[in-house]
Amino acid sequence: MSTFTVGDYLLSRLQEIGIEHLFGVPGDYNLQFLDRVIAHPTLSWVGCANELNAAYAADGYARCNGAGALLTTFGVGELSAINGVAGSYAEYLPVIHIVGAPATGAQSQGDCVHHSLGDGDFQHFIRMAGEISAATARLTADNATAEIDRVITHALQARRPGYLSLAVDVAATEVPPPARPLIIRQTSSPDVRRAFRAAAERMLASAQRVSLLADFLALRWQQQAALAALREQRAIPCATLLMGKGVLDEQQPGYVGTYAGEASAGQVREQIEQVDVAICVGVRFTDTITAGFTQQFVPEKCIDLQPHSARAGSEQFAPLSMADALSELQSLFAQYGQQWQSGDTPTVAQPEAPAAIISQQAFWQAMQSFLQPGDLILAEQGTAAFGAAALRLPSQAQLVVQPLWGSIGYTLPAAFGAQTAAPDRRVILIIGDGSAQLTIQELGSMLRDQQSLIIFLLNNEGYTVERAIHGATQRYNDIAQWNWTALPHAFSLQGQAQSWRISETVQLNEVMARLSRPQWLSLVEVVMPKDDLPPLLRKVTACLNQRNGG
Amino acid sequence: MSTFTVGDYLLSRLQEIGIEHLFGVPGDYNLQFLDRVIAHPTLSWVGCANELNAAYAADGYARCNGAGALLTTFGVGELSAINGVAGSYAEYLPVIHIVGAPATGAQSQGDCVHHSLGDGDFQHFIRMAGEISAATARLTADNATAEIDRVITHALQARRPGYLSLAVDVAATEVPPPARPLIIRQTSSPDVRRAFRAAAERMLASAQRVSLLADFLALRWQQQAALAALREQRAIPCATLLMGKGVLDEQQPGYVGTYAGEASAGQVREQIEQVDVAICVGVRFTDTITAGFTQQFVPEKCIDLQPHSARAGSEQFAPLSMADALSELQSLFAQYGQQWQSGDTPTVAQPEAPAAIISQQAFWQAMQSFLQPGDLILAEQGTAAFGAAALRLPSQAQLVVQPLWGSIGYTLPAAFGAQTAAPDRRVILIIGDGSAQLTIQELGSMLRDQQSLIIFLLNNEGYTVERAIHGATQRYNDIAQWNWTALPHAFSLQGQAQSWRISETVQLNEVMARLSRPQWLSLVEVVMPKDDLPPLLRKVTACLNQRNGG
Repeated sequence: MSTFTVGDYLLSRLQEIGIEHLFGVPGDYNLQFLDRVIAHPTLSWVGCANELNAAYAADGYARCNGAGALLTTFGVGELSAINGVAGSYAEYLPVIHIVGAPATGAQSQGDCVHHSLGDGDFQHFIRMAGEISAATARLTADNATAEIDRVITHALQARRPGYLSLAVDVAATEVPPPARPLIIRQTSSPDVRRAFRAAAERMLASAQRVSLLADFLALRWQQQAALAALREQRAIPCATLLMGKGVLDEQQPGYVGTYAGEASAGQVREQIEQVDVAICVGVRFTDTITAGFTQQFVPEKCIDLQPHSARAGSEQFAPLSMADALSELQSLFAQYGQQWQSGDTPTVAQPEAPAAIISQQAFWQAMQSFLQPGDLILAEQGTAAFGAAALRLPSQAQLVVQPLWGSIGYTLPAAFGAQTAAPDRRVILIIGDGSAQLTIQELGSMLRDQQSLIIFLLNNEGYTVERAIHGATQRYNDIAQWNWTALPHAFSLQGQAQSWRISETVQLNEVMARLSRPQWLSLVEVVMPKDDLPPLLRKVTACLNQRNGG
Repeated sequence: MSTFTVGDYLLSRLQEIGIEHLFGVPGDYNLQFLDRVIAHPTLSWVGCANELNAAYAADGYARCNGAGALLTTFGVGELSAINGVAGSYAEYLPVIHIVGAPATGAQSQGDCVHHSLGDGDFQHFIRMAGEISAATARLTADNATAEIDRVITHALQARRPGYLSLAVDVAATEVPPPARPLIIRQTSSPDVRRAFRAAAERMLASAQRVSLLADFLALRWQQQAALAALREQRAIPCATLLMGKGVLDEQQPGYVGTYAGEASAGQVREQIEQVDVAICVGVRFTDTITAGFTQQFVPEKCIDLQPHSARAGSEQFAPLSMADALSELQSLFAQYGQQWQSGDTPTVAQPEAPAAIISQQAFWQAMQSFLQPGDLILAEQGTAAFGAAALRLPSQAQLVVQPLWGSIGYTLPAAFGAQTAAPDRRVILIIGDGSAQLTIQELGSMLRDQQSLIIFLLNNEGYTVERAIHGATQRYNDIAQWNWTALPHAFSLQGQAQSWRISETVQLNEVMARLSRPQWLSLVEVVMPKDDLPPLLRKVTACLNQRNGG
């Protein structure tokens, strides 16, 4: 191990961009590279039960850490992971996907080797990866260091996956260590920046009602502090979309709630839409979180900040980074903010006494009280995510959801990855039974690594969100019935865990009281009515059924 | 349901090609099509725990039934399944993959809908599917029936997957039922057929030593009966490669064993290679099953039959179907067979008294005695498949392995699919602990459907086959330790199951004696030495390490 190889070079770059854990599954084409991983002083190998779970874990890790990395083997491994990587592409997470590949000679001869399609073409899978990657490269002994730098730089600038095909012999090729640090630029033109400021000023100088809507792209480009600073200038009405919850401090004055188009609760929609100027930061309007594109903003009254461009009214500005645009808004807030109306944080209605059984209403009311500052909450697509939309998050809390890609099962391995990134945070996973079945084996990895996650397993006997869309009583929305509380014991020989099965609200409160800071992994099976839905989801599913033709 | 729709048309075609079960996972883009599946008189819906498992199950089903079908939802579902479909492509299984897609209008407008990448391009996934499909189609109201027929026909002719993108509105479009049956042709030119016969006759007429090597493509093109008929004419030395085990009746005279190049046992290599004419039927030499391409055949002495062509010495013949070529060989066997040497079925060496602990040798010796005629055995890539290579199968038994694609975890859901296709056969799954972790949740589907599979779970504490290739004591070859025998109980509320954990040979024999025809799912955790390998695998892994530069 005295020589420095392409494999070592790649690991240096991963370390440089803040990656401390590499998720994946070993395979014979990546074993020798794995020797270098194990030998690395700061990077840790995190073996997962399968590759899709590893991709989800790397995505969850990237949501907490800024970037993630994934190692699989040629063909079988990379394709098993590809749905997880596609989710990282759709939802803007820079996950570096390293694929151990057959030796260069076997590839150039077109040998009929295992994990190939047997047709001598070794480019099938890199072409597939190209559909869901910011950049791809087939590393060779000659191009490896330049291509590693190019792919990682592109991935970080685009906040999307990068794909590296690493043949066994290329990984072992000797190269010099990196000479210079990577340069990750988010560029703005000074002229464009000035022009944007002038246009924004024309809109804001005369405004009385200004609102702020922030979404997930502001999270991905890490603008939480800039947004908080804006709001300290003036507590205008602020909201997030479900996908971006956590980007705004929901305890700060002016926060009005989660915006969801016509499915928004209370006065949220009016406070955000009916204004002189609406400032959107990192917003994408997607179908499920807007109840089917029911948002109504007048383009002439919008200032829309995207990662590399902005729009003020009908004028486009590019290249302009989100950070630079926010910096210009910061001084405009200082100059004009006092004339704008401040937002009314809604008073929480006195909750009704919860039902004896654990209805959706009772569950989310209890969850609201359970949350602590700094919690990391993962809510699975379905009743969990759409119930969580109505939560008011404590300060420093983060919510991980996947409403655009919406791959069920995602949050369980993502929670494993998130807890790996943030070992000291309380991680709460809320997931339905239908979803948990897809990826359940990663419970074994959590237990192996002695993670003390809290899992609320919402058992409503199948795909409740799909029942709500279509086929309420159809057999295809049923699932195999499992003994959920027996799983932690089955998935570990040594790991300690506690589990409960509860169906009454009083039990939920009792269990939650014991989970303030649990020492072990805790699984709470919450038996809920089969057809009960959070209010937002009821509106969303009606819309989806209509869009699917009824 | 009084109208006949595109969805109904598709189901009619599936029924016509012998498919009685549709595997998959529901999603909101396929729910309405699923209504038609549920209403169908002969097709059954088989919900799986996740899409990769469903693809594996459909592949296992196709290996027993001739063809299989899979239903997933757009983006998330289809990409989760894609590794399984790629395996069907590599190993020649016609699996029809139906993907429920967003409404045509949403696609043409480029809406930012869930399960898309959010970039308005709805063709990413069909392009990816194109890399691993015999044919793909994006069905429209205008082209649906013609494209369904084209894709299914191509898939069956090529014995490879076909991909159909079925938008929610297209599925519901009214069409007339099929007017004519599908025509699946395997064409031969009469002139080519005659020329092949003449060339083969020139080689065989003067031969004294003729051998037969049959492989998986002969299984896929269902030539078992034709091969048995040839061998009744003359019991020449016959062998299969691991991938094709079961295509020859291994109890019929002349069977000499499993051919594996220089890793072949006993006299197998000499009897097959050192001949005047070697007849290869449906053979592909791939790395793992030939110990790294160590086969030695003289092309001028080979008659090589492929699905759509043949070669006799240096002459190529196409188009010529395997069935027609075998039919010509049948008459040449009748004419010249008596002059050829017959094969010596090896006498089984008196086995040594097995060790007290369950070594690989003891396990496979017990397994050989345990097998019954008609058994369907699935052996996972790793110690299981390479151990199974040395078995002599009873009549009518079939072995399912996946040595070319080699996706670990495959056999567990494939066994579920195989048992679904053949509910009356005894299905035996042999799988290692490292592999079973990838796909374990399908145990729940087996239990839900009250299947009485027999599972031998070889617990050797991790990826033994990879330890043998590289990194024998490296941590990356360890896995999370599970309580395997607790899993059947955890994965079912109602299903009945029995399980054992054993580590001594005497226990193995006792348990096997109770599993002649079990009524319930039976899981036997067989604790085995961590570094013990079947002899064939020892040779194969040494070769792979060398090819990987290690």
